Amino acid sequence: MSRFLSPTLEAVTPYTPGEQPQDQQYIKLNTNESPYRPSPAVVAAVSEAEVEKLRLYSDPACAELLRTAAAHFNLQPDQIMPGNGSDENLFFALRAFCDEAHPLAYADITYGCYGVWCGLMHIPSHIIPLKDDFTLDPADYYGLNETIVIANPNAPTGLALPRSAIEGILKANPDNVVIVDEAYVDFGGESCIPLIDQYENLLVIQTFSKSRQLAGARLGLAMGNAKLIADLNRVKFSLNPYNINRLTLKAGKAALEDTAYFEKTCAAIVETRSWTKQQLEARGFTVLDSRTNFLFASTGKKGGGELYRKLKEKGVLVRHFDAPRITDWLRITIGTPEDMEALLRALDEILEG
Amino acid sequence: MSRFLSPTLEAVTPYTPGEQPQDQQYIKLNTNESPYRPSPAVVAAVSEAEVEKLRLYSDPACAELLRTAAAHFNLQPDQIMPGNGSDENLFFALRAFCDEAHPLAYADITYGCYGVWCGLMHIPSHIIPLKDDFTLDPADYYGLNETIVIANPNAPTGLALPRSAIEGILKANPDNVVIVDEAYVDFGGESCIPLIDQYENLLVIQTFSKSRQLAGARLGLAMGNAKLIADLNRVKFSLNPYNINRLTLKAGKAALEDTAYFEKTCAAIVETRSWTKQQLEARGFTVLDSRTNFLFASTGKKGGGELYRKLKEKGVLVRHFDAPRITDWLRITIGTPEDMEALLRALDEILEG
Repeated sequence: MSRFLSPTLEAVTPYTPGEQPQDQQYIKLNTNESPYRPSPAVVAAVSEAEVEKLRLYSDPACAELLRTAAAHFNLQPDQIMPGNGSDENLFFALRAFCDEAHPLAYADITYGCYGVWCGLMHIPSHIIPLKDDFTLDPADYYGLNETIVIANPNAPTGLALPRSAIEGILKANPDNVVIVDEAYVDFGGESCIPLIDQYENLLVIQTFSKSRQLAGARLGLAMGNAKLIADLNRVKFSLNPYNINRLTLKAGKAALEDTAYFEKTCAAIVETRSWTKQQLEARGFTVLDSRTNFLFASTGKKGGGELYRKLKEKGVLVRHFDAPRITDWLRITIGTPEDMEALLRALDEILEG
Repeated sequence: MSRFLSPTLEAVTPYTPGEQPQDQQYIKLNTNESPYRPSPAVVAAVSEAEVEKLRLYSDPACAELLRTAAAHFNLQPDQIMPGNGSDENLFFALRAFCDEAHPLAYADITYGCYGVWCGLMHIPSHIIPLKDDFTLDPADYYGLNETIVIANPNAPTGLALPRSAIEGILKANPDNVVIVDEAYVDFGGESCIPLIDQYENLLVIQTFSKSRQLAGARLGLAMGNAKLIADLNRVKFSLNPYNINRLTLKAGKAALEDTAYFEKTCAAIVETRSWTKQQLEARGFTVLDSRTNFLFASTGKKGGGELYRKLKEKGVLVRHFDAPRITDWLRITIGTPEDMEALLRALDEILEG
C-alpha cells in the first residue's frame, strides 16, 4: 500500500480468484469452467477479418449483440445490458442500487464478490445465514427494505430455489431491487427471465462463462425492466463506455445463436454430474443436490483443506473455501467423464492411503 | 432513471463517446483510431487454437503480457498493470488516489472522462484553465496538494509538454500522485516512463488503442512505482479480477513485440499529419502544433458545428466539441493519405460553396 492511497480503500479486502495456473498441468476442476470448447460457430465468428478490424473501437451500444440476445430471451433490446463478465454487471448494479445509506442483503454462504463490492463502495452488508442444511428460506428476505442479491442456483452450494420462491421475494420487496445472479441457471435451475415484464424490481444477471464456454472472453448480460437497464447504462457510460471488446461481442452473438451446441453441452454436464454424485455418495461423501456445473461435497474422513491439498499433489485442482461452516467441503467442477474418473481415482488413493 | 436509483447517481453526467456508426459508410476521422490494421503478428496470435481456449478464464495476473511489457519499457513486471482500456486504468487510479476529501486537478480543456469520473465518485474537481493559446503552464500545477492528471500530449488540442515540464510538476507535488495520460505520446511526445524509478508519485497511463491499432481490443497499461501499482491492483481485485479477456492479452503481447510495424505506422501518421497540417494552413485554417494522431483546427470562415455537420453530409466524420473556448474547432484524426485527401476535397467544397 502506498502513502498516497485513499483512506477509503485501506479496509478493503480484495477478492481471491481461484488458482489459474497457466501451464495446464492440472485437471482443472476449480473455477467452474466448461470442459468443452466453444461452439464451432464462435471459432468461425472470431475470424481473421474481425481481428483486422480491431483497429476500430467496439460499438459502445453493443447493438448487434443486443438484438440477438433480445430475440433469444424473448425480451426487448432495452431490457438487456452486456457487461465485461457478469462481475462487472453485478458491480454496476450495486453501484446503481446501493450506497452508504442503502444496504445490500445476501446470504452468509454465497458468491464472495458481493461482500468485496460492498467493502469497495462502503455499502452496508446485511448478511442472512442460510439454514443448517444450506437451503435459503425465502421468508428471511421478505420486507427487508434493502437491495437484495441472490445467487440462484447458489454457489458454492449448488442449491436452487424455484422461480416461485424468487417471485415471493419480489412481491415482498416492491420498493427494492432484487438481483438474481443466474450464473449457473442453465444446468438445471429455473430462470426468472419470464418474470421481467411483471416485476419492475427484478434484475437478472447471466454469464457466458459457464454454459456458453466463454470464461476467457468475459461477457455477461444484465436483464430487467428498461428503466433498471438505463440506470446500469448510466453507470457504464460514466465509467468505461467501451467496456466490451469487438471479438467478445462477435463470440457472444455466435454462442447465443448455436442453441443446439448449448443444449448438447449442458446435457452432457448434467449427465456427468449425476454420475459423479452417485460415485461420490458410494464413497461415503455427502453431496448437495446441485443444479450447477459443480458439486459441493464433504466426507467425514478428511477435512476439506487436506483433501484439496492432496488432490492438488495428484494433479487435480478443486476449490476449497477456508470459511466458517464450509471448511470441510470441496467445490468440484464437473469436467468431462474422463476428468471425473481421474478425480475419483485420486480420491480413492487419498482416502485409502 | 428508475425510482430505485441511488441518489448518489442522480447528478452524474455520463460520457458521450464519439459516434461509432457500424455500417462503415463514413471516412472515420472522429475517434482517433489508427487507419492501419493491427500487426500481422497480432492476427497470427489470435489463432483458432487460442479462440478454442476461451472456455478457460484469462490469467487475472496477466503474467505473460507483463513480462513482455516490462522488457519493452525497461521496467519490472510489478511496475505495470494492464487494464480494460486506459479508461479503466484511469478510473482505477482516481478511485485509488482521490476521494471526496482529496480533489483532482486537471485542465479545463482536456479528456472529458476526467470530469465524468469525478462526478461518479464525488471527487471534487479543481479545473485549471489552459492559457489563451491552449498551452499549459506547469507553474499552475505547483504545490497543489491535490492529485493531478495531465494528458500529455493533450486532447483535443494535440499540444505536448516536454518531459522536463512534467518533472517540474512531480517535484513540486511530492506528496501527491501525478497521473500522466500518454494516450498519444507515440506520435511525437516525450514519455515520462524514464522518470518512474526517480519519482514515486508518478503514474503513467498508456493505451493500445492509438499507436498499436487495438482500439477494439480494449487494452491499456498503467506504469509507475510498484507501490502505486499494488494500489491499483487492490482496486482491480476488488472490482473485476478477470478484467481482460484472453485474446486481448495475446494481441497486446504480439503488438508490443512487433516494434518494426509500430515504428513504421507511427512514422506514416506523423508524415501524413505534417502534410495535412500544411494543406489546412494553406486553406487559411489555424492548426495547433500536434504531437498526436489528430489535428485541432479552426477557420474563421465557418463555425465548428456547421463544418462538422457539412463534413458528415459528405461522408467524413470528424469530432466537434460543443464546449466553451473550443466550439469553433474541429478535432480531425489522421487517417491514410487518401482519407486526408478526401477530407480536404470535402472542406474545399464546403468552404467554396
